[in-house]
Amino acid sequence: MSSSIGKILTLTTFGESHGVALGGVLDGFPSGIEIDEDFIRSEMQRRRPGSTKLGTQRNEDDEVRILSGVFEGVSTGTAIGFIIENRTQRTADYSAIKDLYRPGHADYTYKAKYGIRDYRGGGRSSGRETSCRVAGGALAKLFLRREGIRIDAGVIAAGGIRIKNVIWAPPFPAPLYAPESPERDEMIRAIEEARAEGESIGGIIECRISGVMPGLGDPVFDKLDATLAHAVMSIGSVKGIEFGSGFESTLRKGSENNDQMRKGNGRPLFLSNNAGGILGGISNGEDIIFRVAIKPTPSVSKEQLTVTESGENTTLSVHGRHDPSILPRAVPVVEAMAALTIADHLLVERAYGRR
Amino acid sequence: MSSSIGKILTLTTFGESHGVALGGVLDGFPSGIEIDEDFIRSEMQRRRPGSTKLGTQRNEDDEVRILSGVFEGVSTGTAIGFIIENRTQRTADYSAIKDLYRPGHADYTYKAKYGIRDYRGGGRSSGRETSCRVAGGALAKLFLRREGIRIDAGVIAAGGIRIKNVIWAPPFPAPLYAPESPERDEMIRAIEEARAEGESIGGIIECRISGVMPGLGDPVFDKLDATLAHAVMSIGSVKGIEFGSGFESTLRKGSENNDQMRKGNGRPLFLSNNAGGILGGISNGEDIIFRVAIKPTPSVSKEQLTVTESGENTTLSVHGRHDPSILPRAVPVVEAMAALTIADHLLVERAYGRR
Amino acid sequence: MSSSIGKILTLTTFGESHGVALGGVLDGFPSGIEIDEDFIRSEMQRRRPGSTKLGTQRNEDDEVRILSGVFEGVSTGTAIGFIIENRTQRTADYSAIKDLYRPGHADYTYKAKYGIRDYRGGGRSSGRETSCRVAGGALAKLFLRREGIRIDAGVIAAGGIRIKNVIWAPPFPAPLYAPESPERDEMIRAIEEARAEGESIGGIIECRISGVMPGLGDPVFDKLDATLAHAVMSIGSVKGIEFGSGFESTLRKGSENNDQMRKGNGRPLFLSNNAGGILGGISNGEDIIFRVAIKPTPSVSKEQLTVTESGENTTLSVHGRHDPSILPRAVPVVEAMAALTIADHLLVERAYGRR
Amino acid sequence: MSSSIGKILTLTTFGESHGVALGGVLDGFPSGIEIDEDFIRSEMQRRRPGSTKLGTQRNEDDEVRILSGVFEGVSTGTAIGFIIENRTQRTADYSAIKDLYRPGHADYTYKAKYGIRDYRGGGRSSGRETSCRVAGGALAKLFLRREGIRIDAGVIAAGGIRIKNVIWAPPFPAPLYAPESPERDEMIRAIEEARAEGESIGGIIECRISGVMPGLGDPVFDKLDATLAHAVMSIGSVKGIEFGSGFESTLRKGSENNDQMRKGNGRPLFLSNNAGGILGGISNGEDIIFRVAIKPTPSVSKEQLTVTESGENTTLSVHGRHDPSILPRAVPVVEAMAALTIADHLLVERAYGRR
Repeated sequence: MSSSIGKILTLTTFGESHGVALGGVLDGFPSGIEIDEDFIRSEMQRRRPGSTKLGTQRNEDDEVRILSGVFEGVSTGTAIGFIIENRTQRTADYSAIKDLYRPGHADYTYKAKYGIRDYRGGGRSSGRETSCRVAGGALAKLFLRREGIRIDAGVIAAGGIRIKNVIWAPPFPAPLYAPESPERDEMIRAIEEARAEGESIGGIIECRISGVMPGLGDPVFDKLDATLAHAVMSIGSVKGIEFGSGFESTLRKGSENNDQMRKGNGRPLFLSNNAGGILGGISNGEDIIFRVAIKPTPSVSKEQLTVTESGENTTLSVHGRHDPSILPRAVPVVEAMAALTIADHLLVERAYGRR
Repeated sequence: MSSSIGKILTLTTFGESHGVALGGVLDGFPSGIEIDEDFIRSEMQRRRPGSTKLGTQRNEDDEVRILSGVFEGVSTGTAIGFIIENRTQRTADYSAIKDLYRPGHADYTYKAKYGIRDYRGGGRSSGRETSCRVAGGALAKLFLRREGIRIDAGVIAAGGIRIKNVIWAPPFPAPLYAPESPERDEMIRAIEEARAEGESIGGIIECRISGVMPGLGDPVFDKLDATLAHAVMSIGSVKGIEFGSGFESTLRKGSENNDQMRKGNGRPLFLSNNAGGILGGISNGEDIIFRVAIKPTPSVSKEQLTVTESGENTTLSVHGRHDPSILPRAVPVVEAMAALTIADHLLVERAYGRR
Repeated sequence: MSSSIGKILTLTTFGESHGVALGGVLDGFPSGIEIDEDFIRSEMQRRRPGSTKLGTQRNEDDEVRILSGVFEGVSTGTAIGFIIENRTQRTADYSAIKDLYRPGHADYTYKAKYGIRDYRGGGRSSGRETSCRVAGGALAKLFLRREGIRIDAGVIAAGGIRIKNVIWAPPFPAPLYAPESPERDEMIRAIEEARAEGESIGGIIECRISGVMPGLGDPVFDKLDATLAHAVMSIGSVKGIEFGSGFESTLRKGSENNDQMRKGNGRPLFLSNNAGGILGGISNGEDIIFRVAIKPTPSVSKEQLTVTESGENTTLSVHGRHDPSILPRAVPVVEAMAALTIADHLLVERAYGRR
Repeated sequence: MSSSIGKILTLTTFGESHGVALGGVLDGFPSGIEIDEDFIRSEMQRRRPGSTKLGTQRNEDDEVRILSGVFEGVSTGTAIGFIIENRTQRTADYSAIKDLYRPGHADYTYKAKYGIRDYRGGGRSSGRETSCRVAGGALAKLFLRREGIRIDAGVIAAGGIRIKNVIWAPPFPAPLYAPESPERDEMIRAIEEARAEGESIGGIIECRISGVMPGLGDPVFDKLDATLAHAVMSIGSVKGIEFGSGFESTLRKGSENNDQMRKGNGRPLFLSNNAGGILGGISNGEDIIFRVAIKPTPSVSKEQLTVTESGENTTLSVHGRHDPSILPRAVPVVEAMAALTIADHLLVERAYGRR
């Protein structure tokens, strides 16, 4: 089911960039959780276009309207339906891109798959789809924070500039949602320069999950890292993911990469966290750490070669209110996908009576 | 379902390293496919311990016995059950590791999750589990090759040595299953040296899938790259994955990373393949390309700090017939997971009558 | 996933009787299907309260608003989201039943399950939930009718009166949606009498599906009849289902119950249809026939013994605009669940290239 | 996934009547459960052909060999794989039925679906497939009995003879597994007479599940009765199912069919159980009661009209060691499917922390 994710906590979404509305259904959410609508609003605000000076200057009104599953402010255990109306759906003019395939976008592949495509702003493949992920993730976070689990992401590299010494002290402030560091201003400047040039840049987002008890995750195909990878790689623009020492581990010897243990308090004390909090697909109680590669957004003003739907050569130069980098807006989306995945595993784990 | 993967072509596996047998069920496999048992045997042979001088010297007999779903040499469309008997299950002596947690292994996390663990050779978390993946993957390949789809993986980096100029001319030969290159012998030597030192090394495996028609993959959560990431990240020792230009794309500008298009033959001609064959989660007809980070195997003879099950400090030095690098043996496993994923998406795609 | 049904064509629903809105997501729907909104409206009209003089006199406005997945009147292949607003959600007065458990309703079980319940009109357990099933089913029917598959249901028994000789000539007319027969007027009178007495009655609905090619359905757990039973039994008030000769077959000998065959045109000619069109869980090309037992609706004006939420004895007499029989309104719901199930199996079957 | 059933406790099976072996994988089974192999053997014995004088005289050796997931007699939480070898697979002679379709069997539909069929004894559609269900169900029962849940089924009608006054005092004895009653001997005689005539008869099996706490089952599509219906209707030869007052409820008025309540001990005291222990798809704490219609087995010696694979008219008269009634052997299979379903719901329920 392409538009659903999760085993017993399942988010199903729908909606196109310029359709009537987007929305979703979060099913399997525990009853008795207080639904803090201000928190949902603040999460949506972090992802909203126009919310920081680094993103697109489009101003979308991402108001989440909860339609079911909440009664007198508390979750009832039944499916939580919500919608986000598209207030401005009919204003844009898409005649320039209606008949051609934008490089780096999903225009061609949607057409190849479905024989038909909603060309207005990318349709279903638009980044706007992630608004529903953030809404669902905000609900998952409300459940997780009651369990003492906290999820934070931050930008650690942009346009080739990478923070050498990441000091993890979330939450990270707008506009970039990056840890404080000498490189932070440089990264912000790189995004501003990209905007000025009509270019775009990518970067790396790190995510850390703390407070996860040992034992989460399933042994074989639904390993905790495998399902996190599935969830996070399903975000558009993500081109890679690594856990703990990740690709760096390929440069080390086994004795260097293993996390040695000493006597701890109730559970082993790990002397390092190269594993990124996961061993054999199961959480070990350390922080879960992963990093995500975000490609530069494909909409650039520089002229590019492409073809029309009928197969003729043409060129395209994209002007307008596009993100020079999707990095800051991707931060809450990465958190949301992590939150949904962890909450799902936590519920499955509870089924087996081990907490 | 932790031990199952796939939406309509589903592989379910079972089995511990030192149990009676391992095995699996491949359900949803099309009828009428000739089951070439020699091919299955040759795939198993590539993964088998003791098959190359670079791996462990243990000699496991990985004979796949098909129990159902095949009649007179042809698949019947019903579930294909198979087992791989453990001939030597009782001989090993595990008293040395029975009561402690090996660093870098899943010993502690299994114990934390289940309250009980089969300590013999890692139990369910053993790399031996991947034998069932290769068996299932071999069947998937028999289906895919009839559809003109080919999947190859090869080692492109080991112990910090990386092939600068990868020339892709599969199949790649034993013992390393790496493309021919000046660095190949160096990589082999690095593994041999690691063995001599009682150490281990990791590396990078690249996988390329050719012959995939445009349109495979689902738009939102079950993007082709997201499900490939799920499948491949579920292999033990994999710590990262990237598609196309991957983490490298984070260093580029949008105009550099986009794959521009020209008029092609039936479909657009892409002038580069930074996307790795996937746009918006859907195949674009180019080769699908991904790279996988494999950590150094955790069993090393150098003494390491750890704790016992009862929480006391101790040390461990692993001797015996362990892999100095899992790289060559992981190659067919990566291919198998890719084959299962692609075959599943291909069947789903067929449901919608677009090929 | 409790609020989702289907393997690759999946309907997910949400919504409470007196919440803001109900709605659903139909995912996996083929692209290129013309979405006939008039047809959807006419299907909704059949289920709508107040639509016939036999049902409740409440007047609900069941307008389906499609929010996504349709572009220029044609399905795009992406998730179809829809909502049905509750215009009159705040008017009712539920203080009389807020603190007690209505006999025959799900009040007690929801409270036991969730610790909290939306007592307004049954909340999620309300029959109003079926409006989303009819909306999803209408879409499925649009796909099926292009494939030559037709689904009709009709009332064949009500309040103990059963049509002796069912002549199947659908569509069946309002108000009862029953085949023409001497017993039809009697059944209508029985419902009117039940209303007059403040009582309720149940009955039997038959459903026939024609035009299904041989080969639909899966062999073991997802047999066509098993999944139809799942789908249909998930409708509130359904207490039983039987296929073909059903419970009657238990009175026969094997030689009487077998459907013998003669040479046919392209496929065997079955001389009878005791199997109800399904053998070994797979369609045989004959009409698929099943019958459903609908219990009398639990809301009656006769005083009944019950308990309060705090466990004290009390009595309840339900007055107001309730259905004396849910039979006519259940007809389109049964059809909808059958349509969703058949469409899902048809898509799976296509995956295997056998049509 | 046709060969899998269950959401988080999943049974996957494989195997043909005359293949090498049948088997299954039970995944999601809790760790720490003592695996009583004698109990599994006794459950298998109840289903085994040749075990009672009423069934077939074939003598199959249904030995379950557990291959994984159990260590030192206790479940480890990992997938439990098992096989049942077919010792006598090659002896039978199927030349008489190889080229024709047996009436009432799945021969034609398998051929239509797959284009190929394993004609030996019905292949995958054989009743022998249920041996894996009983093995999986026995494991589920081991878990359930620790939770105080008990599942019993018994024959209450055979060949048109029905027990008027069912006194439920399980376990019910061989050969018929029917409650003690004046009709029991009559039913046994009816089966013996059917055998003598070369005929077959069907009947009704009732199943009761006691000790289920209120709150099991999901609200919308995965209602407890809907999933039980799915599981039980997936058994070959089952043509109908009803819960509580079932089809009989269609003859009653609402006030008669409602189960009224009085103050109870911790939960309401229901004054009747017409609901069959389920309201709105969720258990109410009363015994769950359902009845299943079993058709007469299709293999009879009376000559029957049929066609060959190539479409020519022919006749068939089945001789040999067939069941004159599948009723007694179906009893443990019905229990097994109920056990798997209840155990799965129980685990899901636990996830939500309400017990």
